[in-house]
Amino acid sequence: MQAKALLKEHVLKIASLTDDEFDYFFSHFKPETFKKGQSIISEGDAVDKEYFVIDGCLKAFFVNDEVKMYILQFAMPTWWASDYAALYNKTKATINVDCVSDAEILSLSNSDREKICSELHQVEHFFRWRTNRGYVAAQKRLLSFMNNDTKTRYEELLALYPALYNTVPKHLIAAYLGVSRETLSRLYNASK
Amino acid sequence: MQAKALLKEHVLKIASLTDDEFDYFFSHFKPETFKKGQSIISEGDAVDKEYFVIDGCLKAFFVNDEVKMYILQFAMPTWWASDYAALYNKTKATINVDCVSDAEILSLSNSDREKICSELHQVEHFFRWRTNRGYVAAQKRLLSFMNNDTKTRYEELLALYPALYNTVPKHLIAAYLGVSRETLSRLYNASK
Repeated sequence: MQAKALLKEHVLKIASLTDDEFDYFFSHFKPETFKKGQSIISEGDAVDKEYFVIDGCLKAFFVNDEVKMYILQFAMPTWWASDYAALYNKTKATINVDCVSDAEILSLSNSDREKICSELHQVEHFFRWRTNRGYVAAQKRLLSFMNNDTKTRYEELLALYPALYNTVPKHLIAAYLGVSRETLSRLYNASK
Repeated sequence: MQAKALLKEHVLKIASLTDDEFDYFFSHFKPETFKKGQSIISEGDAVDKEYFVIDGCLKAFFVNDEVKMYILQFAMPTWWASDYAALYNKTKATINVDCVSDAEILSLSNSDREKICSELHQVEHFFRWRTNRGYVAAQKRLLSFMNNDTKTRYEELLALYPALYNTVPKHLIAAYLGVSRETLSRLYNASK
């Protein structure tokens, strides 16, 4: 689907904008394309943009002192990604975002988001509910991590991203779940 | 501090409201008092309200099949608490909220929040940023859980709630960190 149509469908599920208002909203986004493996945000960067995925898949991740990778989030089409702590607090990135596949995205700067939120009440409404849903998803993921329930995490992942198992390398899925490749294979075979 | 003054100071840090607008906003909140140990939300309840803490301390928690308690969040004065997944999605509660101490709170219903957000753009702005910050806090907590870094979790907890160590029973702090009482004592002694 064309970038503009995909974003419009996504926004109108939450907010009421006229065609003219949506066109104005959309004029603040910038199309960008990235290659598989390309870095979008690296630890230590200044972060000024958030990214709406049109096509492809991003991952937000960090690597600890023992060089172990943890995947915080995948971002498939209609998902948003950034280092939101850095973006909102205007601090340096503490996580990385890169491309699991070639990706087509729309980027929006911090200042443009605040500008259009203040200009159009319905845009502020949209972003409030976008973040409300992100908050609930982050809390759900925290709960399953606290409870250390790998099976639930696996099932939640498949429910969130049904296409993921066929499109993303297994070692990245294992890094999202916080398990070994072997545990992932066991879960996969048990669920068939 | 008086409930109204505390909420006003909290809101005006983020949003610009005239005195009349704030009075109108405030008129949608209901003061409630709870006793130590009293339940506010129980698993399976319908959830219609969120809670702004004026005095005392709440905890949001769940208990797994092995009757082990996990604390998702403490809520001290000027913090908000609810089962947001249930509140936003209009589903039954999957977590519990109760009182660590006697508590004085202001409650706001789901429908009143949406009503005042739609009536006053600055109120929508306030709630967007309230949730943005909650999202960042939840993601930070998820990162430290994924990395299984108990020491960082302990330090983050003390930074978030400096008064907590003296006001909340140690077994609840351990349940927040996801560690045993013994590990907690070791961290506490090492940090002195």
